[in-house]
Amino acid sequence: MLFKQVYQYIVGKIERNEWQAGEKLPSIRLLAEELGVHRLTVFKAYQLLKENGKALVKEKSGYYVKDAQQSCHALDPDLEAAPPTVLGEFKNNLSEIQAVPVAYQFSQALIDPNLLPNLFLSEYVKKVFDIYPKLMGSYSPVQGDIELRELLCRYIAHKHKAQLKLNEILITSGATQAIDLIARLYIRPLDAILVERPTYSGALDVFRIHGARLIPVEISIDGYDLEQVEALMKQHRPRFFYMNPTFHNPTGYTVPSAQRKLLVELAERYRCILVEDDAFHEMYFDTPPPPPLFTYDTEGWVLYIRSFSKYVAPGLRICAIICRQSVMGPLVTVKSLADNGTPLVNQKIFLHYFQSDRMQQHLKKLRIALQVRRDIMEAELHERTNWEWVRPKGGLNLWLKLPDTFPVETLLQACFQHSISFVPGTICDPLQQMKPWIRLNYSFINEEKLREGIRKLTDISRQFEA
Amino acid sequence: MLFKQVYQYIVGKIERNEWQAGEKLPSIRLLAEELGVHRLTVFKAYQLLKENGKALVKEKSGYYVKDAQQSCHALDPDLEAAPPTVLGEFKNNLSEIQAVPVAYQFSQALIDPNLLPNLFLSEYVKKVFDIYPKLMGSYSPVQGDIELRELLCRYIAHKHKAQLKLNEILITSGATQAIDLIARLYIRPLDAILVERPTYSGALDVFRIHGARLIPVEISIDGYDLEQVEALMKQHRPRFFYMNPTFHNPTGYTVPSAQRKLLVELAERYRCILVEDDAFHEMYFDTPPPPPLFTYDTEGWVLYIRSFSKYVAPGLRICAIICRQSVMGPLVTVKSLADNGTPLVNQKIFLHYFQSDRMQQHLKKLRIALQVRRDIMEAELHERTNWEWVRPKGGLNLWLKLPDTFPVETLLQACFQHSISFVPGTICDPLQQMKPWIRLNYSFINEEKLREGIRKLTDISRQFEA
Repeated sequence: MLFKQVYQYIVGKIERNEWQAGEKLPSIRLLAEELGVHRLTVFKAYQLLKENGKALVKEKSGYYVKDAQQSCHALDPDLEAAPPTVLGEFKNNLSEIQAVPVAYQFSQALIDPNLLPNLFLSEYVKKVFDIYPKLMGSYSPVQGDIELRELLCRYIAHKHKAQLKLNEILITSGATQAIDLIARLYIRPLDAILVERPTYSGALDVFRIHGARLIPVEISIDGYDLEQVEALMKQHRPRFFYMNPTFHNPTGYTVPSAQRKLLVELAERYRCILVEDDAFHEMYFDTPPPPPLFTYDTEGWVLYIRSFSKYVAPGLRICAIICRQSVMGPLVTVKSLADNGTPLVNQKIFLHYFQSDRMQQHLKKLRIALQVRRDIMEAELHERTNWEWVRPKGGLNLWLKLPDTFPVETLLQACFQHSISFVPGTICDPLQQMKPWIRLNYSFINEEKLREGIRKLTDISRQFEA
Repeated sequence: MLFKQVYQYIVGKIERNEWQAGEKLPSIRLLAEELGVHRLTVFKAYQLLKENGKALVKEKSGYYVKDAQQSCHALDPDLEAAPPTVLGEFKNNLSEIQAVPVAYQFSQALIDPNLLPNLFLSEYVKKVFDIYPKLMGSYSPVQGDIELRELLCRYIAHKHKAQLKLNEILITSGATQAIDLIARLYIRPLDAILVERPTYSGALDVFRIHGARLIPVEISIDGYDLEQVEALMKQHRPRFFYMNPTFHNPTGYTVPSAQRKLLVELAERYRCILVEDDAFHEMYFDTPPPPPLFTYDTEGWVLYIRSFSKYVAPGLRICAIICRQSVMGPLVTVKSLADNGTPLVNQKIFLHYFQSDRMQQHLKKLRIALQVRRDIMEAELHERTNWEWVRPKGGLNLWLKLPDTFPVETLLQACFQHSISFVPGTICDPLQQMKPWIRLNYSFINEEKLREGIRKLTDISRQFEA
C-alpha cells in the first residue's frame, strides 16, 4: 500500500497549501526519484488523487491540484462537517474484526479468562491495597514503578542470564503501546522499515499510520533468509526490523538460535535496530524457546518488547521495553508525552502476583490447557478439511493455508453471520496478498465451543469450495 | 521555538536523502515562503544546522548539505552508537522538573493522596472484584467500557443538560493521552494551532513533538480578546485552538459565559476545532463555573477533554473525550493503534466509586481542604513577598509575577538544592518568554509542609532580589 502513503504525502502538501490549487504537480518521474519509490507507485497515487477529486489531469500536460473546496466535498460527502484528520485511509484492520461481537472467537490472540486463577487474583488484589493504602492517589514514575523494574531485572537475570540496569526497563501499557512508542521515535514519513511476511497485523497498521514504507522479509520454519535480510538492509537502509522471532505471530515459527546471533551482527553492521517483539516466550508446549536476540546484543541495537501480562492478567496490560540507556532517554520522553506513565495500580497488582509461587503453578497448567486446545483444533481441522499448516510448538495461533483460489473474504463475512470470527491472512501480509491464508486462535474459547466453532466454520467453508 | 521545527524539517529531508550531501539548500527567502514562516526563522534554523555540523556555508553562495557521516558525529559524540531518533531537541519540560524528587512539591498539579478517602476506596475495590471476578482477564472495548460510558452520559445529561450518545464518549488513560490522540489526529508538521499564553506546559510539548507551529492567544482575567482570536483564525487557518477555559492552568482564570458561545461560533465560521481541556471543573471554591463550551456546540467543532480521576482517584488515570460521531471514528482508530484501549480494571473501579454517594461527600470536603491550602499559601506569600497574583476561584495553582528582572531559572536550581520544586513560567509560555512568572501548586502537600516550603522558598528568593 505504498501508493497510499505517497497519496497521503501529497494530500498533506495540498492541505498545508505548499502545493496550491491550480498548481502543476511534479512529474511522475521527478516525484518517484525524490521519494525513492517506483514510478508506478506515484502513478497509482495520482490516480487516487484524481478519483478523490483532489487533482485533475490536463491532456499532454500532467496533473494539477484541484480547488480545495471542491475536493473536500468530493472526498466524503457524508462527513462534510467533520474536520479533516491526518488519518486518511489508514485504519486498524485487526481491531475492526475483533470489534464484531461473536460467540466463536477465533480472531483474538488472548487467553480465555476462565484459564486464569481469577479467584486467587481477586484475593491478591485485596492484599495489594492493604500494602499500599494510597495506591489510588499515587502516580507512577514515567519510566515505571521502581519495585516492578527491580523485579524484572532479577527475573531477566535469572531467566536469560542478562544483567540489566534499572533504567534499561520501561513499563508500557501493553505491547501495542510499546510498538507505537518505538514507531513514534524512529519513523519519519516514507522511512523504510523491515517487517516479516506475514506478521502481526496490528503492528503493520501502527507503522502505516506513521508513514513507514514496509519492506517484507519472508519468514519460514527455518527462520529468515539472512542473505535476503542483509541485501534489504544494504539497499533500503531501514530504520528498524520489526520481528517476532519466538512462536511467531501468526505462523508459530521460531527463528533458530544460530540465526539470532548473526542477526544482531547484521543489525550492528548496517545500523538497523532490531525491534524484537516477544509476546509468547512463556507459552511453549515442548521445550522452552532459545534466548531472545537481545541477550546477544552488546551495542544497543536491539529493543526488546516483552509482554508479561498476556498470560498473567491480560486486563492489567503490563508490558516492558528493554533497551540500552542511550535509547531509553528519548523513549521515556515519548512515553511521558503519550500518557505520563502507566497507572501505578496496574503495576503494583502485577508485581505482587508475578512474584508469587502461584504464578509458576498457574503457568504450568496454562501450557497444558493451551496444548489441549491446540490439539483439539488440529484434530477437528484434520478430519474435516484438506487445509495445510505447521504444528505450532508454542503461542496461541494456527496459521492455515486454504486451497489457492479460496474466497477467504467471503468466508469471513459468512462466518460473521454465524457468529464466528477469524483473521484473514491478507491483513497479516505487508503486501496484502496472502489471500488463501487464515489465522485461527485456539486460546480464547473452551474445548467444547472450540469444537463446535470449527465444525460450523468448516461447514460454512464447504459452500465456497471449487 | 519555531526555528527548531524548521530545523527538524530540514534534518528529516537530509536523513531521508531527499536533500543529499553536497547539495545546495533552498535560499532562505524561498524556504521561508514555502513553509509560510519568517525569513529570520529559517536563518536561525540554518545557523543551527551549521552549528550541528549538518550544513556548511560557502561565502556568497549559500548553505550546503554536509557529508552525512561527518554531521552524525558532530551532533552528539557521546551517543555515537545510539540510533538517531525523530525526537531531535524536543522534550517534556514539565516531566523533567517533576522527576526531581523533592520534599516540598509545588510543581505537581496533583491532589494530595491524603485528601482522598483511601481506606474507603480500597474497600470499594474489593467489592468491584467480587462483582467482576474475571476482571483481570478481560479487555475493554477500544472506545471504553460500555457501563462507564453509560454512566458518563447520564452524568453529563444531569450536570450540563447535554444529551450524549454512547459512542460520543471515548475513555482515555489520563488527559495527556487525550491531548496526544487529538494532536496525532490533526497535526501535520508545520500546521498552525492556537494555544493560550500561558498554558499547560505538557500540552505545548506534545504539540511540539508533532511539529505544530504554536500561535499564542493571550488569556486574561476577562478571557480572550475575541478580535485577536478571529484575526488569528483568519490569518493562520489553525487546525485547532487548544484551550483550558475553566480555572485555567496555570492562571486560574475562567473564560466568561458570554465569550463561550461566541467562541463556538468563531470555530464554526473558520472551521477551527476547539479542543476544550477541562481538568478542574469540579474544583471550584465559591460558585460552580459556567457550562463547558461543548454544550454550545451543535456542529461538532468542540472536542471536550474531561478529566475525572484527578479528584476521584488520580492513580486510575481515567479521562474522557467527548465529541461528535463523525470525529469519533478516526479517534477510536488512533486510540486502538496507541494502546488498544484503556485497561478495564481501571474503568470498573472508577465506575463504581464515581457513582457512590461517598464520592459527592468527598468532593465537598475536598473543595474546602483545597481552599484552606490556597489561603495558607496566599497568606504566607502576602506576608513575605511583593509578588503579584490574582486569587484563583478554583483549580490547583497560583500564578505569580515576580519582580521583572528576577532570575527565576537560578531560583529553581537553588530550590532543587533545598528539596523544593515549582514550575517556571517560561515553560508555560509558547514563546518561552514569560521569565518573571512562576506557578505554585497548593494541592499536593499538607498545610504544615506548605507553610514551611513557602517560607524556605521565599527565604531562598531573597538572595536573588536586586
